[in-house]
Amino acid sequence: MKLATYKDGSRDGQLIVVSRDLNWAHYATGIAHRLQQVLDDWSFIAPQLQDLYETLNQGKARHAFPFNPAQCMAPLPRAFRRVEGCAYLNHAALTRRSANATESEGLTTEPLLYQGSSDNFLGPCDDIVCQSESHGIDFGAELAVVTADVPMGAPPEQALDGVRLVMLANDVSLRQLSGAELPEGLGSVQSKLATAFSPVAVTLDEIGEAWNRGRVDLTLQISWNGRKVGICDAGPEMTFHFGELIAQLCKTRGVRAGSIVGSGTLSNKDRSHGYACIAEKRAIETLQDGKPSTEFMRFGDSIRLEMKGRDGASVFGAIEQKIAPRS
Amino acid sequence: MKLATYKDGSRDGQLIVVSRDLNWAHYATGIAHRLQQVLDDWSFIAPQLQDLYETLNQGKARHAFPFNPAQCMAPLPRAFRRVEGCAYLNHAALTRRSANATESEGLTTEPLLYQGSSDNFLGPCDDIVCQSESHGIDFGAELAVVTADVPMGAPPEQALDGVRLVMLANDVSLRQLSGAELPEGLGSVQSKLATAFSPVAVTLDEIGEAWNRGRVDLTLQISWNGRKVGICDAGPEMTFHFGELIAQLCKTRGVRAGSIVGSGTLSNKDRSHGYACIAEKRAIETLQDGKPSTEFMRFGDSIRLEMKGRDGASVFGAIEQKIAPRS
Repeated sequence: MKLATYKDGSRDGQLIVVSRDLNWAHYATGIAHRLQQVLDDWSFIAPQLQDLYETLNQGKARHAFPFNPAQCMAPLPRAFRRVEGCAYLNHAALTRRSANATESEGLTTEPLLYQGSSDNFLGPCDDIVCQSESHGIDFGAELAVVTADVPMGAPPEQALDGVRLVMLANDVSLRQLSGAELPEGLGSVQSKLATAFSPVAVTLDEIGEAWNRGRVDLTLQISWNGRKVGICDAGPEMTFHFGELIAQLCKTRGVRAGSIVGSGTLSNKDRSHGYACIAEKRAIETLQDGKPSTEFMRFGDSIRLEMKGRDGASVFGAIEQKIAPRS
Repeated sequence: MKLATYKDGSRDGQLIVVSRDLNWAHYATGIAHRLQQVLDDWSFIAPQLQDLYETLNQGKARHAFPFNPAQCMAPLPRAFRRVEGCAYLNHAALTRRSANATESEGLTTEPLLYQGSSDNFLGPCDDIVCQSESHGIDFGAELAVVTADVPMGAPPEQALDGVRLVMLANDVSLRQLSGAELPEGLGSVQSKLATAFSPVAVTLDEIGEAWNRGRVDLTLQISWNGRKVGICDAGPEMTFHFGELIAQLCKTRGVRAGSIVGSGTLSNKDRSHGYACIAEKRAIETLQDGKPSTEFMRFGDSIRLEMKGRDGASVFGAIEQKIAPRS
């Protein structure tokens, strides 16, 4: 099924069920108001939502209304945990090599993870509000999953069973600020803005056979100012699948329902696939020409992310955002 | 006022109001069930809780019952954001110097922050469950605040107005694992366990004149296996006060209500104050003797943190935990 959260002026919004073709929606009122409630009590609530979803798909839901992604908050507008992985090693290798940083040995054997903020996610069509263009505004196209409870010490196969929902994400970075933060060794705080998520979060059956044991064998299309800059294969080059990322997270403690785990920026070795963040494009330019030539984003720039299923239909709906100055 | 959350089998527990002397409690049912609700709508709900608190202190609350810290979850059992500061520079200086790491220049001019996990906090008397004693189990005694909404770009004085509640915290680290994680530059994931918080979270008036514009001028007592190992002054050596920590966090984006900001481990230059984490004690030993002699915690070890007000009464109640093996 496909789930979304509609804006209603509150911090957590209203849970809606969205039809498979993304044309129709129905409030989940009477079943659950918020997605976190569903995740907290999945086995009881999810089947009721699934029933509503089927009725909606059959055109039989009485109070259905046309679905409008612009009315969406992130499916989980705020979450209790958010961790980012670095699952596409080509991305890490390129950015580190161009910065003359040594590639760490551990990188290729165990997935690297870092904590992200989760108090305030953006809806798929919300503006990305920035203080200054000089901060090096960069998009970051990736996949993310929402977890169930996963116990401490769960191996990757068991952790994979903890994937409840899948989304697209635009993880926005301020690259000119990460240069000051990252050398301290404690990750990014100021250099990460609020992440936006796709209009809908979907259960694994929506991805169908393209869900390849923790990887999504589909193509993510990335357009910057209307120009297609990335047509990235999400599956084959995801070195660590989502089960491995979650298992890594569970090594010393359990993960609770509603935690969001991101794949990290998509990346393909074959450069004809383009890029899923500007930093990688600039890294390639630096390695080739000694310096980057692609500039970061400007106020008014737009970014669009979408992934189509094997039937050609949009799986998650599109993220379509603009960069806006602080008003 | 003093607020706590009682265990009721749910993930978020039940909000209770606790008397100033920590002897009595009263369910906040009818006002709010969960602390996050209060933080989301503070100016409407907090005065109602304050009324109940005063009635309780006067011994006039009808359904009051004896307060039992062992029944407490963390005041916020899970939160939407958690950030740790490194506000006590003596701690950072000692641990870096003993590891032969260079002290970064930025450290003394701007507070360092890092993201923590917030999906599953521990109650004040909950066991600290660990996979292995060999992980280097360490306590970490600190103060933490819960914020209101604070807008992007708020200066320290404005950010200070965003402090709603203050708590004690035991931020447990697995020091033998941080050695592998920190060099990657992305902070701690596996090497941090769930943090425990004091039985009650208090508003600033409870700290009274000891609340010194973002610092708490009181002493934190730390006992390990019943032996007093730290009597740390929390105020004067907190290089960056909580307003400065929150302002640093708000430089590029707003902070939402219910975010938890920790001070980082307390530390005093005068070594007669003892230590607030074992890593610092070991750092001092390494600088003096070339190697550490104090071992990390073992299964069955206990740790107790408490802070008394100028009237000699416990402000937050005590954190009293044991280290337990995974069952």
